Amino acid sequence: MSDNARLRLAVAGVGNNISALLQGVHFYRKLKDQDDLVGIRLPYIGGVHVGDVDFVAAFDIDPDKIGKPLDVAVFAGTNNYPVLDVELERSGCIVREGLRAPLNGSDAPLLPVVESLRDSGAEVLLYSLPTGLQWAADAYAKAALQAGIGFVNCTPELVARDPEMLSAFEAARLPLIGDDLASHMGTSVVHRTLLGLLGTRGITLDSSYQLNLGGNADFENLRVAGSSKQQSKLNALAQDGVDTSVVEVIPSAGFVKQLRDNKVAYLNIEGSGWGGTRVSIDLKLKVQDSSNAAGVIIDLIRIAGVSRRKQLGGFNAAAVSCLKSPPGGHPQFSAEAVRSAAETLEANGHRPVLSHG
Amino acid sequence: MSDNARLRLAVAGVGNNISALLQGVHFYRKLKDQDDLVGIRLPYIGGVHVGDVDFVAAFDIDPDKIGKPLDVAVFAGTNNYPVLDVELERSGCIVREGLRAPLNGSDAPLLPVVESLRDSGAEVLLYSLPTGLQWAADAYAKAALQAGIGFVNCTPELVARDPEMLSAFEAARLPLIGDDLASHMGTSVVHRTLLGLLGTRGITLDSSYQLNLGGNADFENLRVAGSSKQQSKLNALAQDGVDTSVVEVIPSAGFVKQLRDNKVAYLNIEGSGWGGTRVSIDLKLKVQDSSNAAGVIIDLIRIAGVSRRKQLGGFNAAAVSCLKSPPGGHPQFSAEAVRSAAETLEANGHRPVLSHG
Amino acid sequence: MSDNARLRLAVAGVGNNISALLQGVHFYRKLKDQDDLVGIRLPYIGGVHVGDVDFVAAFDIDPDKIGKPLDVAVFAGTNNYPVLDVELERSGCIVREGLRAPLNGSDAPLLPVVESLRDSGAEVLLYSLPTGLQWAADAYAKAALQAGIGFVNCTPELVARDPEMLSAFEAARLPLIGDDLASHMGTSVVHRTLLGLLGTRGITLDSSYQLNLGGNADFENLRVAGSSKQQSKLNALAQDGVDTSVVEVIPSAGFVKQLRDNKVAYLNIEGSGWGGTRVSIDLKLKVQDSSNAAGVIIDLIRIAGVSRRKQLGGFNAAAVSCLKSPPGGHPQFSAEAVRSAAETLEANGHRPVLSHG
Amino acid sequence: MSDNARLRLAVAGVGNNISALLQGVHFYRKLKDQDDLVGIRLPYIGGVHVGDVDFVAAFDIDPDKIGKPLDVAVFAGTNNYPVLDVELERSGCIVREGLRAPLNGSDAPLLPVVESLRDSGAEVLLYSLPTGLQWAADAYAKAALQAGIGFVNCTPELVARDPEMLSAFEAARLPLIGDDLASHMGTSVVHRTLLGLLGTRGITLDSSYQLNLGGNADFENLRVAGSSKQQSKLNALAQDGVDTSVVEVIPSAGFVKQLRDNKVAYLNIEGSGWGGTRVSIDLKLKVQDSSNAAGVIIDLIRIAGVSRRKQLGGFNAAAVSCLKSPPGGHPQFSAEAVRSAAETLEANGHRPVLSHG
Repeated sequence: MSDNARLRLAVAGVGNNISALLQGVHFYRKLKDQDDLVGIRLPYIGGVHVGDVDFVAAFDIDPDKIGKPLDVAVFAGTNNYPVLDVELERSGCIVREGLRAPLNGSDAPLLPVVESLRDSGAEVLLYSLPTGLQWAADAYAKAALQAGIGFVNCTPELVARDPEMLSAFEAARLPLIGDDLASHMGTSVVHRTLLGLLGTRGITLDSSYQLNLGGNADFENLRVAGSSKQQSKLNALAQDGVDTSVVEVIPSAGFVKQLRDNKVAYLNIEGSGWGGTRVSIDLKLKVQDSSNAAGVIIDLIRIAGVSRRKQLGGFNAAAVSCLKSPPGGHPQFSAEAVRSAAETLEANGHRPVLSHG
Repeated sequence: MSDNARLRLAVAGVGNNISALLQGVHFYRKLKDQDDLVGIRLPYIGGVHVGDVDFVAAFDIDPDKIGKPLDVAVFAGTNNYPVLDVELERSGCIVREGLRAPLNGSDAPLLPVVESLRDSGAEVLLYSLPTGLQWAADAYAKAALQAGIGFVNCTPELVARDPEMLSAFEAARLPLIGDDLASHMGTSVVHRTLLGLLGTRGITLDSSYQLNLGGNADFENLRVAGSSKQQSKLNALAQDGVDTSVVEVIPSAGFVKQLRDNKVAYLNIEGSGWGGTRVSIDLKLKVQDSSNAAGVIIDLIRIAGVSRRKQLGGFNAAAVSCLKSPPGGHPQFSAEAVRSAAETLEANGHRPVLSHG
Repeated sequence: MSDNARLRLAVAGVGNNISALLQGVHFYRKLKDQDDLVGIRLPYIGGVHVGDVDFVAAFDIDPDKIGKPLDVAVFAGTNNYPVLDVELERSGCIVREGLRAPLNGSDAPLLPVVESLRDSGAEVLLYSLPTGLQWAADAYAKAALQAGIGFVNCTPELVARDPEMLSAFEAARLPLIGDDLASHMGTSVVHRTLLGLLGTRGITLDSSYQLNLGGNADFENLRVAGSSKQQSKLNALAQDGVDTSVVEVIPSAGFVKQLRDNKVAYLNIEGSGWGGTRVSIDLKLKVQDSSNAAGVIIDLIRIAGVSRRKQLGGFNAAAVSCLKSPPGGHPQFSAEAVRSAAETLEANGHRPVLSHG
Repeated sequence: MSDNARLRLAVAGVGNNISALLQGVHFYRKLKDQDDLVGIRLPYIGGVHVGDVDFVAAFDIDPDKIGKPLDVAVFAGTNNYPVLDVELERSGCIVREGLRAPLNGSDAPLLPVVESLRDSGAEVLLYSLPTGLQWAADAYAKAALQAGIGFVNCTPELVARDPEMLSAFEAARLPLIGDDLASHMGTSVVHRTLLGLLGTRGITLDSSYQLNLGGNADFENLRVAGSSKQQSKLNALAQDGVDTSVVEVIPSAGFVKQLRDNKVAYLNIEGSGWGGTRVSIDLKLKVQDSSNAAGVIIDLIRIAGVSRRKQLGGFNAAAVSCLKSPPGGHPQFSAEAVRSAAETLEANGHRPVLSHG
């Protein structure tokens, strides 16, 4: 298979993220002759263009979605990502029933999944179920391994950070990319950037808070069970010279259904400058939540796809800036990490394979 | 004179900046035994502590200020910087009448200024008159040269960028530092940082604006004559990957006298992310305007003072990050420039001369 | 002509306001069977529905607009009101060349205008040229008078407040409605409401400011010539118990072309409550500027039209809440004034002529 | 006892509200000769000035507070209301141990409370314990009744709305004022005012949300148990023409300890104006939470005190605008209700007893 062939993708979970991803891929496919793509950092990774993704298999357990073509299913159920101004092709990919319960020692329930992954010709399985289903993350990763394809974990479940799982993928020379998406343009990176700026300028941080609210299912869940998320978000702010003991992070300040798939964050930063006089920053950030995910997923699946074609097994460092909890430590927010590692993914160079345009 | 002796400073113009500087120096002098100083990046430069500044001469033309001790004069006239919670010593430095008109070919009017600079033992003359008096900037720089001391220009007037003037200071092995202060924590650096973040993440910038308002004399003047300032502020935002053609900067959106010496800025940034969906940032920044100046002046005068003691003539690159228009090009906002160049200012090392604490 | 017949309107000036008015009328015409209309306070005034307006004559001096059907001309020249999602009928109304210079004693230049007003069967002439052309406001008012139709002045020029002009319209039993539009949902009414709330609650007002910015031609003009507008806006805030001496109003803080026809306002209110502790409000308002005008114009032209049908000459008090400077004093912001006076406009009652639904 | 004598007050609970009340009373006592008092609507009610309150008895169960003079106890325990710039007299009122458990059928535990109320000469007992202790509210109300004094309930517990309790106070010709404080300048009144303005102007409300956050104990409790509060706050927004089904209220979006006794609210309002174009309002409100309570308590205790002096038993309608849940229905936010009813409280008129100054 040529380096530049379309990436063949399977998805576990057909939520807003997949709606954003599917619509966006079609949106960019029409713009393939443009040098600069709106909202895109890397038009090509390893020769694969943002629009070069084919959806070949999909799993979900929502009766509203099962049996429907993917381009219909992405608007079904509780999905509320907006309808972008782009025409979708009728998809040949029909949503199949996914795993409904833990395996309990027997791999039998995996068999139909593995089989349909093989039949579809998928190169990568993208795992994007609701947060909290560790057993499902494990099971789908196992299915990818058995089907001989790469795996990308969007959720905080422990997969790429599980040393046994990582060794298994390495041994099979298959890529395993995770865990937990960093947002494309999320609250953490904005907050971290501003706190870092204060430090660089010598302004003393007195107090800061960050509130997030939204109208999709994530925010409804987080409102009650937000404390692990809270710590993870605080970690994302930690950096040299920033005293996070005076920073409060509230992952879900509220579920506001009218916001639908939008996410709103309020930041406040109070500091002291020369002579102890006050420096005060208030910020409101509004983003399309699932676009924030899709803008990062597009890089992760291309890194996984190209790694598999090149038989680079295990975790690929090119993914580090797109993840909150990569194996072996702290996320980096600079674009440099992606670029340098991604260079190792490049093909014979007949065309710019990694570029801004 | 020992490296660690107090820096002897003369000031031309006794406005809010000098009020902030004088009060702040006393504020920090009491905290000399602390490792971390609130609002301070570099407690020591070349062995000189933030509190180690003595005011030995001062010039102004406001009858409300002339003849008064400096600690009284800084609260006179239209000055409206707040009274900090620190006790000021009665200053032995009495404000003298400064230059009132262009020299017109004769250096005679300079003589009393030069004489009093010499008599005072000043090492550096800080020029901080209202913006727009090119003749005054020239005259005071000449006076510093004749008195054999360093010169720091806070204003946008052309002094350090004037090749002849720069050569004269180099020849005399005297430091000449300018032009135009970068704010300690100003609108430009916040705006630039956020625009840069968008670029790094691949978000397309659609439009952005920046408004500034305040209640001191600067804002009253800028409201009518803001266009050169506007261009200078746009330049400060320019960086790789940022399309400034869609950015509007309004240096003085309004004079609001109730804000007194506070400065308020509003920023809006509209961008497009994945699939063209919207990313929107609104920010309000509130700072003490003259603290923003003093927080940078304290570094510039120490760089100038230590340079003079070491006979480093001309412009010192350690100052570059504190200036909007240094000679020979673009300002840098990273702290690295100050640090590396400042290391050349260090003494024999018996004490940490350049450090964060 | 029946009370419920469509109102026949002529317009002087084909700017954004007319684009908003024309598109909006078509938008609401399709919704005539609905009880509640989005964005509309009074679906009917005197039996005339929001959608019941026919554009029968139009004047402008922009070569881009002259000779074009009105539905084309409203998108020409510098007009930048958005294209609403509604299909416009091809208009039979072709834009004619309007007056280009003061009359200078001779009414001859008025003749073609008067003639075309008569030929068109217009009932009302809406004057909506750029602010500042007193001669043009006078001339078009005179033309309306000669043509025997009503006149509505959207601008601050002195027309309805000119006693001679008002007498002439009264004598002719023709309505004259003006001067200067109050915004449908503008900064003044929001600011006034919040300041009034503070007063009612006993919070002491310490300081407040209001900034307005936008991207249409109004904001470019106001930036330099904003002082009369500033006073007029301060007047609009005056009310019992509000100390406007601590309030700053900046009608055009800036021209930001990317905002196009949007208007953004920032308000800040600082007050003192119990024991002198601080109360602080920050507000951002964003509106479509010309929609703000059209939402008020629709009431004014219906009041003028129905008044003419009923031979109610001069100023009609029903218009008072829609105007900044009505003849004889202070504007009111309550809806009551419109309602009670509008009741005198009602027809024989076979259908609700003045209602919320 | 003369009408103008100082009001003798007992307090149950010595939290931030009492700190605000005690400090504020001293603050205003010094300003008694001023006509306008900062942050005060009604300097006098029934002849009693804002500064005319003596604290004569106090109950609490915090060991940090018991046994201390009231002016010391208000800064003890978890209290974090700021220290105002006013000197407090050493209080003769020593905090006594309050009720620790439900009465369980026996009134014996009440006896010491009743006795100390009688001994202190208190005219009114102010109930201000943490929300949720219905038994304590009942018990203290009973104690007031037995001691023959008035009762004011600051909390949402059912006291004035309990018909039996209300009858008992009426029969004894003692005032009973409650339930639940309306904030002096709170989120609800600001939100309600802006939503009402939209309705008046004919702007269609599309969606709105309100978030509240703070750093005192209330916010920590509300975060988990906020749903009854949520409904109560939604009720407070209900008014003619406002569709609250699209409004989301989050009473405690977060506990941010750095905010201490400050409260921050964020409001967003999205509406549609002419032609369906967008109207958007974003607002941040910051207030001192307990000042908001004290600014209303000062009116309630004076209404109760004057009512007792005039033997007006039961609920006094003059209190209605200061309460969220008065007996018999909906709160009013206009100042008129207080004024008219308060006029019945007036004395013989030798001095303005109810005035704005």
